[in-house]
Amino acid sequence: ISFFPISGSWNVIRADGGSERNCSAIPPYLPSTVVNTTLRLQALREAMSSVNVSAYIIPGTDAHLSEYIAPRDARMAFMTGFTGSAGTAVVTLNKAVLWTDSRYWVQAERQMDCNWELEKDVSISSIADWLIREVSDTDNIGFDPFLFSIQTYESYSYNLVPAKLMLKSIPDNLVDGVWTDRPLIPPDNLIRLPDRVVERTWQMKVEHIRTQMTDNPYKPTAVLLSALDETAWLFNLRGSDVPYNPFFYSYTLLTLNEIWLFVHKDRVTEDLKLYLNSTCFPLAHCVQLLEYEQVRVMLKNYMTTSGVKVWIGTEYTNYALYELITPEEKLLTSAYSPVLTTKAVKDETEQRILRDAHVRDAVAVIQLLMWLEKVVPEGKETEMTAAYYVNECRSKQKDSRGPSFETISASGPNAALAHYSPSNATSRKLTVDEMYLVDSGGQYLDGTTDITRTVHWGIPTDMQKEAFTRVLMGNIEISRTIFPSGTKGVNMEMLGRRALWEVGLNYGHGTGHGVGNYFGVHEWPVGFQGNNIPFREGMFTSIEPGYYKENDFGIRIEDVVVIVPAHTKYGHNYLTFETVSLVPYDRKLIDTSLMSPQQLQWLDNYYLTIRELMGDELDRQGLTEEKTWMLKHTVPFQSATASAAVSSLSLTLTALATALLHILL
Amino acid sequence: ISFFPISGSWNVIRADGGSERNCSAIPPYLPSTVVNTTLRLQALREAMSSVNVSAYIIPGTDAHLSEYIAPRDARMAFMTGFTGSAGTAVVTLNKAVLWTDSRYWVQAERQMDCNWELEKDVSISSIADWLIREVSDTDNIGFDPFLFSIQTYESYSYNLVPAKLMLKSIPDNLVDGVWTDRPLIPPDNLIRLPDRVVERTWQMKVEHIRTQMTDNPYKPTAVLLSALDETAWLFNLRGSDVPYNPFFYSYTLLTLNEIWLFVHKDRVTEDLKLYLNSTCFPLAHCVQLLEYEQVRVMLKNYMTTSGVKVWIGTEYTNYALYELITPEEKLLTSAYSPVLTTKAVKDETEQRILRDAHVRDAVAVIQLLMWLEKVVPEGKETEMTAAYYVNECRSKQKDSRGPSFETISASGPNAALAHYSPSNATSRKLTVDEMYLVDSGGQYLDGTTDITRTVHWGIPTDMQKEAFTRVLMGNIEISRTIFPSGTKGVNMEMLGRRALWEVGLNYGHGTGHGVGNYFGVHEWPVGFQGNNIPFREGMFTSIEPGYYKENDFGIRIEDVVVIVPAHTKYGHNYLTFETVSLVPYDRKLIDTSLMSPQQLQWLDNYYLTIRELMGDELDRQGLTEEKTWMLKHTVPFQSATASAAVSSLSLTLTALATALLHILL
Repeated sequence: ISFFPISGSWNVIRADGGSERNCSAIPPYLPSTVVNTTLRLQALREAMSSVNVSAYIIPGTDAHLSEYIAPRDARMAFMTGFTGSAGTAVVTLNKAVLWTDSRYWVQAERQMDCNWELEKDVSISSIADWLIREVSDTDNIGFDPFLFSIQTYESYSYNLVPAKLMLKSIPDNLVDGVWTDRPLIPPDNLIRLPDRVVERTWQMKVEHIRTQMTDNPYKPTAVLLSALDETAWLFNLRGSDVPYNPFFYSYTLLTLNEIWLFVHKDRVTEDLKLYLNSTCFPLAHCVQLLEYEQVRVMLKNYMTTSGVKVWIGTEYTNYALYELITPEEKLLTSAYSPVLTTKAVKDETEQRILRDAHVRDAVAVIQLLMWLEKVVPEGKETEMTAAYYVNECRSKQKDSRGPSFETISASGPNAALAHYSPSNATSRKLTVDEMYLVDSGGQYLDGTTDITRTVHWGIPTDMQKEAFTRVLMGNIEISRTIFPSGTKGVNMEMLGRRALWEVGLNYGHGTGHGVGNYFGVHEWPVGFQGNNIPFREGMFTSIEPGYYKENDFGIRIEDVVVIVPAHTKYGHNYLTFETVSLVPYDRKLIDTSLMSPQQLQWLDNYYLTIRELMGDELDRQGLTEEKTWMLKHTVPFQSATASAAVSSLSLTLTALATALLHILL
Repeated sequence: ISFFPISGSWNVIRADGGSERNCSAIPPYLPSTVVNTTLRLQALREAMSSVNVSAYIIPGTDAHLSEYIAPRDARMAFMTGFTGSAGTAVVTLNKAVLWTDSRYWVQAERQMDCNWELEKDVSISSIADWLIREVSDTDNIGFDPFLFSIQTYESYSYNLVPAKLMLKSIPDNLVDGVWTDRPLIPPDNLIRLPDRVVERTWQMKVEHIRTQMTDNPYKPTAVLLSALDETAWLFNLRGSDVPYNPFFYSYTLLTLNEIWLFVHKDRVTEDLKLYLNSTCFPLAHCVQLLEYEQVRVMLKNYMTTSGVKVWIGTEYTNYALYELITPEEKLLTSAYSPVLTTKAVKDETEQRILRDAHVRDAVAVIQLLMWLEKVVPEGKETEMTAAYYVNECRSKQKDSRGPSFETISASGPNAALAHYSPSNATSRKLTVDEMYLVDSGGQYLDGTTDITRTVHWGIPTDMQKEAFTRVLMGNIEISRTIFPSGTKGVNMEMLGRRALWEVGLNYGHGTGHGVGNYFGVHEWPVGFQGNNIPFREGMFTSIEPGYYKENDFGIRIEDVVVIVPAHTKYGHNYLTFETVSLVPYDRKLIDTSLMSPQQLQWLDNYYLTIRELMGDELDRQGLTEEKTWMLKHTVPFQSATASAAVSSLSLTLTALATALLHILL
């Protein structure tokens, strides 16, 4: 699934056809999709007055800066009515404003009542400028420090302090105080991973992190884990508190001698307590369970100990914990915690099972593509039914745990929209006259998948073929490149764009992101972004160049790859990518005349791998029709080209010989 | 000329054969090359005591953070005896230590007496760690703020403050106080550029910078210029205060209404005063001349005015000026001043004359290569005589103003050393058995040049040919790439390495840097480094991949290119590079079988350009032998290849026809 790091790089509007509010009409017109926020705003403003703040900032995230949030964390949506995945709300004593980006402007106009204004420049400096205009000097601006990253806090502070506005940290969220029917903590117990998917026990992982602490020249005494996947990884545990990601509410404070796990304790079974050694002694290898809500109290207490130094990853630690780590000598920061950098490199078992998950996942995607090829000409299928179909196919695979994100099933112009997922209002019928893009992925007990294919069931235009081929060339150029261990993705990602640039085309999203083992589908810090860590053997990342023609079509070709050693003529410690997604590309859209011999060679090798691995798997699952389809779609290109060249040469020679004979006879 | 941004990426020792000091011998052994520093150290320590500092830091740079420094700024060399171009000295009341990198360790052992210790980890944190060990808590560490960049200050501060060591800014340099025979300010007058090389008068440039000030949302009232090329560019002036760069000591404070130029006023002729309107009124277009040394007094005074805000580029502003810009609301920073970012894009005249300078410069390099081809087999020439020869050739070209850096003329293993220039002690005889690398450049009134060619006069090994070809492929792959305007060099520079990476080879220096119009040969912020600004039409940069085999040979292929519009099939605002260096590569070292058809096509087009432009120029200069040499070395590769293929096909057909005839007759 793609991601859009460059704000403003997209400028398309979600054309879902619903009617929008009109607050300047008399009386104001409100569609039935809006939420009445008058009472909740009134209650919030009373709460604000009682803590003496003139403005209150409501971000869309949770305390773990998660990509997906649980319903009980949807505070911005509760206050505004707007349910999009990105935005910030600000309430003052007489105004209420939502900032969201262009993907969501129409949706916001359909969901917000006239208590709310919509602002379109989502930069923090723009929000701060608005606050400077609206709020008096020396007034307090309240915020929940759990919902601010360190960087978010620093950006607001940088912009507001020169204007003499004070930021006031209020750890008890004011929205929660007025949200009477706020969803509860999910009651589900945490689960531990089965041994067959685990190479390193939690004890081994704890010791590995402790080694990194003692090896660190700044001598931290503790590591504080805030992101949900950090704690889940450390203890080989999973949960289901947020959509699509098998996470549970948690923090961990790991010291050289003790381990504190902050969770909702009633969700930890007796078995799990045993597994975690939660009552043992000495304490170094015992997980002491504390209530999730106790994290600030405990951390504050730990900071009073002399000689302590807490190591945090600044990208995922919220400001509520960061602000407690004082004085400065007690703080050690890196962009990512040692857990996230360690987790980025998969161990042998993780590599093996993540490859396995991709084999089973490819079965589901092959089933989808084969089915669509058959049924689309009948004219009854839509983006929605296709998305449903691929989810169904995945659910039948071993160890399936549902989709890893909402399937993007997009036909024609819908595929040119960023982060489009079909709804009843927008779903297009699939036809042989439009290109179709499907970006989907699954969660499996052994791995997380993410793959995009773009197909055409009729006759593509030359431009569509050229754009598709150049996107494919970008995918291949990255995939086949050889580079020294430690090279950063951002320094190679232009290879994904170069064939497009050559003809003046480009795309406005990132080129790839890490994926996890039954974890997040965007598993940072691996990938091709500027803030990603250097590539090392055993990391997995997506490669996903694309091209989008507004109001016309969209192309993306996404595969997951693993970083493997490359054997070079002269050097050591060189790496390359090996593709673990195993679904053929649409042949009809490939113009081999644009491609280099090396690219064609790569493509044929890849198809050979698909034929071998998927041939075996489809046999195992008894899917003969799928196997035939797969074989048909993975015929080598080069031997085809070569024999074409040979036959064209034979023709020439035959002609020549005929001519010669004519002359001679 | 190459540059080495990654500290520690090189680990080669300058093998100049001289004997080194031995301070553990009894008595200590000192070669004749050392400087006796006992008395000057004693004097410095007295000066330190009188201002109450326990340690004093002596950087190797000047107040303008220049790449080349004037003799009067060689304070580190004066105190230590060590004359290398990079290093930091620290003196405490009982120790004296020099930090320098691996390129200079041998040289330091030959030049320093036993008062000095040598430390090898040149990071500021390592210097700070040493200070923390050597100096008592709460002691002061003195430094000259003119010789610290903002970042240098912040790095020291970051490391020292937690250890309770105080940095004490001492604007009157303590070394200067004990340096009795310190060289004087050069007496030469400043010179103004002739009109024929100027498109924008200084008045136009001043207005252009003022427009950027008024357009800036933070509303700066002044721009402060600290780097020597900033002031020189703004007023179209040049000088000769530092080696290789036509700069003069200066600062500028430019406000919306006034212009203050800080120079040594006695070096400004009456003509120049007229040119600068130094006595006119109103003041907006009059340059008020102030003494160079008055800059701090004047800036301090300006800061007392209410409502002012000073815009500085943090990369080139020294701490002595930065520390005066308080309170924080009066400061506006960007990495580079608007002068440096404006100067980065050459105007039409600058582009034309910089191209012209490269045509004349190529004559000199062609003369060198032709001469070497003839005389090397005779066995009398050396690295030194070759360097002398190319300098002589350049000096005969129109508007020559000397070399733009010390020529790197390096044979065999010497070419594998970073920043090697020959000396009497190291100069190798040139032979047909070794590869030879020459990296040289000239200053001309109209432009600055920088070019590297690597040649072999005998029979290169397969490995040498492969490495050379892959370096050339890297140069070509960058040169021919098409990219959207605003792409950063750092995101493309791997194209220079990719062909090498493929076989496990690499190089340890940067891939390119901007060049100027009669300015610095490393003209930042243009180039392929992480901190360089995005590429725009009209910028010039070098492209210079290489490969170095320790103790064996070195290859670098460096050209200067200009960024020009690329006409693409679908897009607008795409750019590419056009090579303005015009000297053929050594054919003997090129293995065309490794190259793609696109690379060969690019090479043939480049050679066609050389034939046209250099053919005309060599005719104009009446250099017929050189023209013959140039034509011989620029025969197209592809028509050669194509005709070879055609003739091989004809042979086949002939054989076939013969066979047919045999059968038939």
